[in-house]
Amino acid sequence: MRAGFLGPAGTFSHEALLLDPGAEAFELVALTTLHEAVLAVHSGHVDRALVPIENSQEGSVNPVLDALAFETEDVVIVGERLHPVHHCLLAPSPVELAGIRTVVSHPQASAQCARFLREALPEAVVVTADSTADAVRRAGADGGGSTAALGTRLAARLYGCVVLREDVEDDPENETRFVWLGRAEGSGSRFRPPGAGNPTRRPAGDVTCWKTALIFWGAGSSGPGWLVRCLSEFASRGVNLTRIESRPRRQGIGEYMFFLDLAGSEADSAVADAIAGLRAHAEVVRVLGSFPAA
Amino acid sequence: MRAGFLGPAGTFSHEALLLDPGAEAFELVALTTLHEAVLAVHSGHVDRALVPIENSQEGSVNPVLDALAFETEDVVIVGERLHPVHHCLLAPSPVELAGIRTVVSHPQASAQCARFLREALPEAVVVTADSTADAVRRAGADGGGSTAALGTRLAARLYGCVVLREDVEDDPENETRFVWLGRAEGSGSRFRPPGAGNPTRRPAGDVTCWKTALIFWGAGSSGPGWLVRCLSEFASRGVNLTRIESRPRRQGIGEYMFFLDLAGSEADSAVADAIAGLRAHAEVVRVLGSFPAA
Repeated sequence: MRAGFLGPAGTFSHEALLLDPGAEAFELVALTTLHEAVLAVHSGHVDRALVPIENSQEGSVNPVLDALAFETEDVVIVGERLHPVHHCLLAPSPVELAGIRTVVSHPQASAQCARFLREALPEAVVVTADSTADAVRRAGADGGGSTAALGTRLAARLYGCVVLREDVEDDPENETRFVWLGRAEGSGSRFRPPGAGNPTRRPAGDVTCWKTALIFWGAGSSGPGWLVRCLSEFASRGVNLTRIESRPRRQGIGEYMFFLDLAGSEADSAVADAIAGLRAHAEVVRVLGSFPAA
Repeated sequence: MRAGFLGPAGTFSHEALLLDPGAEAFELVALTTLHEAVLAVHSGHVDRALVPIENSQEGSVNPVLDALAFETEDVVIVGERLHPVHHCLLAPSPVELAGIRTVVSHPQASAQCARFLREALPEAVVVTADSTADAVRRAGADGGGSTAALGTRLAARLYGCVVLREDVEDDPENETRFVWLGRAEGSGSRFRPPGAGNPTRRPAGDVTCWKTALIFWGAGSSGPGWLVRCLSEFASRGVNLTRIESRPRRQGIGEYMFFLDLAGSEADSAVADAIAGLRAHAEVVRVLGSFPAA
């Protein structure tokens, strides 16, 4: 089983993947971008990929949503994981915070640690890196003794850094929801979710809570009440929406697609009926999969 | 009238501001981040600010939404502008594309020109800059003759670069919606929208199309049908929603706030009644303003 993640080694994606209960059976494949991670599942380069889809501070991870919507039709969501995001301040060797002149960081990491940086390192210049692991690698390669980085404890070990401070994120509850991507039935996927012959069908007698993710849009999406008619298909059947997200359809300002997460499996009749009802209003409805809720 | 924008000089925000019909009367103030631009309106450091709020490719500009929601209660939207976003490939002196080894770019610009970079500059390394203007400034300071940048024609002029190629964005319809921010009535603002004593009231007899923006959230937002009940207040009165966007409330995964844009002014009774109806479902409803649609 080849499992893809956003590299290089030492990112939060890597850390989340190593903590997966099935991690020992995986051959890990580091991919360069989230776009590439989604396409690697589509092409069969990997059997599955663990990708971030939303963060409790920063919201949606748009490259994943856009790749699912625009680039592939056979990539489905087969599971999810919640992963706490705890940033460390790292440096090549022990140093007083007062001696740090430069902090290398991915912009999302420095955003999540903005208060810490302002209060503990008011004089330091923040330099942009392509990922948290790239930041730590660059700090590790700096021999001057005045450069630090924000990243994972794992990255510190990989790139020869020590942890100066841990849990420097402004919100200790900071967490990211990751989803497992696989290929849909009938498209040559070698992956099946545990205990299920079909990613969208749950095993009989299963008591796990399930979720279903879908994308929809419609030519009538700008008409009064169109979105309400779409969502009413779920509300009227008691189906709970856990998330709604809009993204541009790349057809100009004002044209959107909608990502829905809802409680229940497509195998539930209320969910299936609601999705059938939605198809009457929407130009496109694509079910991204039903999977056990984290 | 002091008008703030995201600097440094030569950004798309600067370009959009210079094209504003009232630009000649403004004293322009370059601000370092979008967060700072919103807070500069709040503090009175500027009278208004022109900030990007959504792009036709990349969607919402989250730092603006989050600053409006979390950092201020007295900053309102008093107008909007649609601005086409056309990227140029720039360099310190005329050079063949085959000679370019490095392209300095803000990540959003390289995302919007991804196909061009892949096809026309397959060998070039893309280096991250803090803004499109920063990218051009850095390319302009490079004497080696193998560095280019993505940015505006204005930035080329400011930082001593020439335009190698224009309109290199993948989507020629690429555009950004900017909003004018000002301070609400009663909070010491020196700014009034044209012809109106109150930003949320339109002049009598006005035939311009108006829009209203608001934020809401509720403790019941995860209950079945809650969002549908909220949106039905608008649909049942024939009020058209032009946009809905969810953002995390920073209370953990699953807790969201919603940004709505709708057609009509708060001075319209249908809009006012719908907002009053919404207040019955939502814990917080904050009207960000009514303004003439672009």
